[in-house]
Amino acid sequence: MEETFVPFRGIKKDFEARLKCYKQDWTGGFKAGIRILAPTTYIFFASAIPVISFGEQLERNTDGILTAVQTLASTALCGIIHSLVGGQPLLILGVAEPQFSCTPSCLILPRIELIWGMCVDIILAVLAGHLGACSIINRFTRIAGELFGLLIAMLFMQQAIKGLVDEFHIPERENPGLPQFVPSWRFANGMFAIVLSFGLLLTALKSRKARSWRYGTGWLRGLIADYGVPLMVLIWTGVSYIPAGNIPNGIPRRLFSPNPWSPGAYENWTVIKCRSLHPWCFHPATMIAVLYYFDHSVASQLAQQKEFNLRKPPSFHYDLLLLGFLTLLCGLLGIPPANGVIPQSPMHTKSLATLKHQLLRNRLVATAKHSMKDNSSLGQLYGNMQEAYQQMQTPLIYQQQSMRGLKELKDSTIQLASSLEDIDAPVDKAVFDIEKEIDDLLPVEVKEQRLSNLLQSIMVGGCVAAMPFLRKIPTSVLWGYFAFMAIESLPGNQFWERILLLFTAPSRRYKVLDEYHATFVETVPFRTIAIFTLFQAAYLLVCFGITWIPIAGVLFPLMIMLLVPVRQYIMPKLFKGVHLTDLDAAEYEESPALAYNTATDVDPAMKTGSFAESGENLDEIITRSRGEVKHTRSPKVKTPAGTPASDSRECIVLVIQLIILR
Amino acid sequence: MEETFVPFRGIKKDFEARLKCYKQDWTGGFKAGIRILAPTTYIFFASAIPVISFGEQLERNTDGILTAVQTLASTALCGIIHSLVGGQPLLILGVAEPQFSCTPSCLILPRIELIWGMCVDIILAVLAGHLGACSIINRFTRIAGELFGLLIAMLFMQQAIKGLVDEFHIPERENPGLPQFVPSWRFANGMFAIVLSFGLLLTALKSRKARSWRYGTGWLRGLIADYGVPLMVLIWTGVSYIPAGNIPNGIPRRLFSPNPWSPGAYENWTVIKCRSLHPWCFHPATMIAVLYYFDHSVASQLAQQKEFNLRKPPSFHYDLLLLGFLTLLCGLLGIPPANGVIPQSPMHTKSLATLKHQLLRNRLVATAKHSMKDNSSLGQLYGNMQEAYQQMQTPLIYQQQSMRGLKELKDSTIQLASSLEDIDAPVDKAVFDIEKEIDDLLPVEVKEQRLSNLLQSIMVGGCVAAMPFLRKIPTSVLWGYFAFMAIESLPGNQFWERILLLFTAPSRRYKVLDEYHATFVETVPFRTIAIFTLFQAAYLLVCFGITWIPIAGVLFPLMIMLLVPVRQYIMPKLFKGVHLTDLDAAEYEESPALAYNTATDVDPAMKTGSFAESGENLDEIITRSRGEVKHTRSPKVKTPAGTPASDSRECIVLVIQLIILR
Repeated sequence: MEETFVPFRGIKKDFEARLKCYKQDWTGGFKAGIRILAPTTYIFFASAIPVISFGEQLERNTDGILTAVQTLASTALCGIIHSLVGGQPLLILGVAEPQFSCTPSCLILPRIELIWGMCVDIILAVLAGHLGACSIINRFTRIAGELFGLLIAMLFMQQAIKGLVDEFHIPERENPGLPQFVPSWRFANGMFAIVLSFGLLLTALKSRKARSWRYGTGWLRGLIADYGVPLMVLIWTGVSYIPAGNIPNGIPRRLFSPNPWSPGAYENWTVIKCRSLHPWCFHPATMIAVLYYFDHSVASQLAQQKEFNLRKPPSFHYDLLLLGFLTLLCGLLGIPPANGVIPQSPMHTKSLATLKHQLLRNRLVATAKHSMKDNSSLGQLYGNMQEAYQQMQTPLIYQQQSMRGLKELKDSTIQLASSLEDIDAPVDKAVFDIEKEIDDLLPVEVKEQRLSNLLQSIMVGGCVAAMPFLRKIPTSVLWGYFAFMAIESLPGNQFWERILLLFTAPSRRYKVLDEYHATFVETVPFRTIAIFTLFQAAYLLVCFGITWIPIAGVLFPLMIMLLVPVRQYIMPKLFKGVHLTDLDAAEYEESPALAYNTATDVDPAMKTGSFAESGENLDEIITRSRGEVKHTRSPKVKTPAGTPASDSRECIVLVIQLIILR
Repeated sequence: MEETFVPFRGIKKDFEARLKCYKQDWTGGFKAGIRILAPTTYIFFASAIPVISFGEQLERNTDGILTAVQTLASTALCGIIHSLVGGQPLLILGVAEPQFSCTPSCLILPRIELIWGMCVDIILAVLAGHLGACSIINRFTRIAGELFGLLIAMLFMQQAIKGLVDEFHIPERENPGLPQFVPSWRFANGMFAIVLSFGLLLTALKSRKARSWRYGTGWLRGLIADYGVPLMVLIWTGVSYIPAGNIPNGIPRRLFSPNPWSPGAYENWTVIKCRSLHPWCFHPATMIAVLYYFDHSVASQLAQQKEFNLRKPPSFHYDLLLLGFLTLLCGLLGIPPANGVIPQSPMHTKSLATLKHQLLRNRLVATAKHSMKDNSSLGQLYGNMQEAYQQMQTPLIYQQQSMRGLKELKDSTIQLASSLEDIDAPVDKAVFDIEKEIDDLLPVEVKEQRLSNLLQSIMVGGCVAAMPFLRKIPTSVLWGYFAFMAIESLPGNQFWERILLLFTAPSRRYKVLDEYHATFVETVPFRTIAIFTLFQAAYLLVCFGITWIPIAGVLFPLMIMLLVPVRQYIMPKLFKGVHLTDLDAAEYEESPALAYNTATDVDPAMKTGSFAESGENLDEIITRSRGEVKHTRSPKVKTPAGTPASDSRECIVLVIQLIILR
C-alpha cells in the first residue's frame, strides 16, 4: 500500500493483483466442500438479520415505501456482484449500518435526486480511485479502526436495548386500541421479550464456545459451534410459540414485513417527495458518499487486519470504483445502496480462519493416518505431511510464505513433542489433549475464497422469497441477536482489551498475555497504556454523543477522520514513539506488514530461520474456536536442544501418538 | 466409628471426645473475627429461605394453622440448642426438607398425637444411641450418601420448576377474581417470574466464582464471592420493584407470610383435628422418626466427608440422642421439629473450608512480611512461618495431624519453588500468579467451630421479627434460589461427576483428573464406571419416582436404606473388589479413614514421611472458591531432588517472591 498519486495506478495494480488469485478464489472455495456452509450460514445470519431489521425500521419511517424487501434485494444484488467481480471477497456488503438509523429521512429522496446523488458518488469514487485518495486509509491506524469498530458495536448494543425497551410500549404507527396494547399485555410482552432476547443472547454466546466443551462428541460440538447461532434463532422462535391459550395474536411481537407478492408492493416507492428534509439534507448524497467511502474502506481494512495473516492482496482502490458503479445501479433500480459493513466483514474473515484451521488439521491427521496404514517409514510420513501441508497453501506468488508456515508447523510440533517428554512418559499420554495442542500450535491462516460471500448473498436474496417464514421470528429475538453481534465483535479488538485491562487487578494483568497478543503489556508502562486508553475512550464517547444529535448525527465519521491528523501530528508529542508503535503501529512508522512482504520480498529472518526466530513466529495469533481469534505466547522452551534428526524424530513420535490416541 | 453394641458406649465416647474440643470450638470461632460472617450469612440464607418457603407451603396446606413463623422458630430454637450443646457443630438443623412437601398432612397432627409421636421418637433415638444402631451409618457408604444428596438436589430443583410453573397459574386458596389473576396479568407475572428467578440463579452462580474473576480488586472480588448470594437476593428483590405504573399490587407475587404480631396469630394452631389423615398416617410419628433418624445421620455424615480432612471427632450417637430431646421440646411447644438438613450441612462445611483456607494464607503472608521487616534470616523466616502455621492448627490430641499438615505445606511450597524455577527465571516472575499457586497448594482444612452455626441460628430466629421485610422478596426469587442450592450441591458429589463423565468425549476424560480427585478414572475401566453409574442412576430414578406417590412418598428413605444390604452383599458379586474400593470405598472394606487415625494412633506413613508420600498427600482435595471443593493431582515432579537445606532455601525464595509481588 505505497502512497501513490499517479492516476489509475492504484486501481490497475489492485485489479492485476486480484486477477492472479481469481481462479484460486473459486477452486479454493469449492475444495473446502460442504464445510464452507458453516461460515456461509454464520455470516448469512449476521448479514440478513440487521438488513431485515433495518428494512423494517425504514418501513416505519417511510410509511411503508421502503421495506425490508428493498434492503434485502440491494444487499443480495450488490453482494453477488461484489463476490463475482469485486476485489476483496472477504468484504461483506449490506444496507444495515446502525448509523443510518439516525438519519433514515436522508435516504428517502426523490428518484431523480437519488440518481443524481449516485452520480456524485460515482464521480467521487472514481476520483478517489484515480488520485489514490484511499491511500489515506494507510494513515487510518489501529486506534481509529478499532475505535470505529467499538462504536459500531455500541450502536448495535444501543439498538438492542432500545428495541427491548420499546417492547414495553405501543409501537408507533400501530392502532393503540388493539387488545395486545392494553397495559397488562404490554407488560407481558415486554417480559416475554426479555426472556427471548436474553435466551438467544446467552445460548448463542455459549454455543460459539461449543468446541471447547467437555461434553458430547467432537462431531456434535463442532456442529453446535458452526451452526449454533442459526439454530438458536430457530429454537427461540419455537419457544415464542409455546405460550398458547388466550394469548393475543400480537404477543410476542414479530417481524412486520411486507409480502413481496402482494399487489401494489412495488408501486410508487421510488418516486416520492422529500418533504421533511432538513437543510442538512439538501445535499445528502454528497454526505452519504463520504460516509460510504469511509465505511467501505474501514470495513475492508478491518476484514484484512494484520493478525489474519492474509496471503492475497487487498484491493481498496478497485473496490471503491466498483462501489461507485454498484451505487449507481441501485439508484437506477430505486433501491437503497449497499456498502461494506462492520462487524460482519471482520466476522467473515474470522470464521474463514477457523475453517482453514480445521481443514488444515484434518488434512494433516488424515495424511498421517494414511501413511501409517501403508507402513511408511517415519521419514516418509513426515514427507507426506510436509507435502499435504504445502498443498493446502495458497499457491501463486506466495510460495515463500507457505514454506515459512511449514517451518513453523514443524518447529511447533517439535516443541510440542519435547514438551510432551518433559511432562509425561508415553505411558501417561492419555492425559494429554493432543488435538487441542495441535489446535493451539497451528498458525492462523484464512480460507480466502469467493464462494462463501457469493452463497451468503444468494441466501440473502432468498430471504425475499422466504419472507413469510421470516415473519415468524419475534422481534425480541432480533434484539438479542443484535446484542450478540455487538459482543461477538469485541474479542480481538485491542482497544476493548485495553479497556478491560484497566479493570484488571494488577496481579492478574499477566493473564492478558496468555490470551491475547498483548506484547504492549510487557513493553509499555501501565500508566501510558491507561492514558492512551482513556484518551481513546473519551474520543469514542464524543463520537457516540454525536450520533445522538438528530440530523448531524450522520457526521460522526468526520470525527473519526479527524483522528488521522490527531494521530499523526498530536499524539507523537504526548506519547513516546516506541510506546505508540507498540500500542498503535502505524504502517508509515514501522516496517511493512507481513501481508505485504510476501508479495514483494522474502523476509531475511525466514531464510536464516533460527529456532528462536520461529519461536517468535509462534507468537502470532491462533484461532481456538470459530469466530474467536486468540493469541498465544510461544511454549516455554528454555533449551532449543536436539539435532535436526532427533527433532524430526520427536515430531514423528508425536504424530504417531496423535494418531493412536484418536 | 468402631461398630459397638455396648449400650451407651457410643454416646459416652462421642460426648467425651467432643467435650475435649468444646473450648476450642468457641475460641477458634472468635479468633476468626469478622470473617466468620461470610460463611454465617451464606449458610443463613441457605437455611432460612427454604424454611420460609416450606413454612409458606405448610400454611397453604394447613389453612394458615402452621406458618413460616413456626418453622422459623423451630429452626432457630433447635439450631441454637444444637450449636450450644450439640456434638457436631457443622451440622445445620432445619424444618425445610423438600421430601416433607410430599406429605405435609402427616405433620398436621393433634397436639396429643404429636407429643406421643415425639415420645416414640425420643425412645427410638435413645435406643439407637444405646444400641449403637447408628453404627449402621458406617455401612451406609458413598454410593448411598451421594445418591441421597443428588436426590435432595433433584427435589429442590423440582420445587424450583414447580414454583416457577405455578407463577403462571392462579394459586390455590386465592380469590380468582382479583385483577392480578386475569389471563394477561398471570402471563405477565409468569414471564416476570422467569426473568427474576433466572436472573437470581445466573448471577448467584457467577458471583460464587468471583474470586477467580480477572476484573476488580481482590478485596471486591472476595466480598462478592462471600456475600454475593445474599446481595443478589437483595438486588433482584429491588429489580422486582422497578416496573411501576399501572401494575397490580400482586405482581410479582411475593412471600405470603403472617405478621407474627397480629392478634390471634398464635391461637388454635397446635390443637387441631387430624381429619384428612390417610390410614398410612395413623402412626406417622414412627415413620417420621425413621426419616428423622436417617436424615439427621446422613446430613451429619455428608458434612463430615473424608475429603474435608476434619480434625475433630464426629458425634453420631450423642447428636441423635439430642435430636430426640429437641423433637420432644418442639412437640411440647407445638412447633414442627427440626432435624439435620441437606444440602445445607455440607454447604456449611465447604464454606468453612474456604474460611480456614483464607485465614491460613493471610496469616502465612503476614508472618512472612513481618519477618522481612525485622530483617530476619531466611531460617528465622521459615521458623516463624512454621510456628504461625502450627498456631493455626486445631490443638488438643490432634497434634500429630497438624505436624503432617505442616509437612505437606513445606513440601508443596518446595515443589512450587522448584516448578517455578523450571518455568521462568526470576525476571519473568511477574507472569506467575503466586497467590493462586499458594491457594492451590494449601491442603483442605475446615474452620471447625460453633460460632457460625450459633450466629446463623440466631439470625434465623431474627427472621420472625424481620417478617415484614421478608415479605418483600418475590416468590420467583425463591425458586431461583432453590435451583441455585440444587446446583451448588452438585460439585464434589462423585456420583454427579461420574454421570458427567458418561457424557464426556473420550479424548477429554483426562480433564476430570485435573479438576476432581477422580483416581477411579485411571484405575477402573470406563465400562465398569459406566455400569456402576447407570445402576446408581436407575436406583436414583426409582427413589425419585417413589417421592411422587401421594402418601407413600415419604417412604423413599427406606429405598435408600435398602442400598446398604445391596451394596454389602449383591454389588461385590457384580463388580471387582478393587473397582468397588475405588468407586465406593466402604469403611468396612478398607483401612480406617483419616479422621479416625489421628484420634487413635499416628499413621506410620507420617513418621517416615518420605517425599513421595507427601506428594501423595497433596492428592487431597483443595478448595479454590468458597463452596466449591476441588481436587487436584500433585504437581508433576519427576525427580524429588534437592537436599533438605536447598529445599527450604527454595521455599524461602518462593515466600519472598510471594511477598514482593503482592
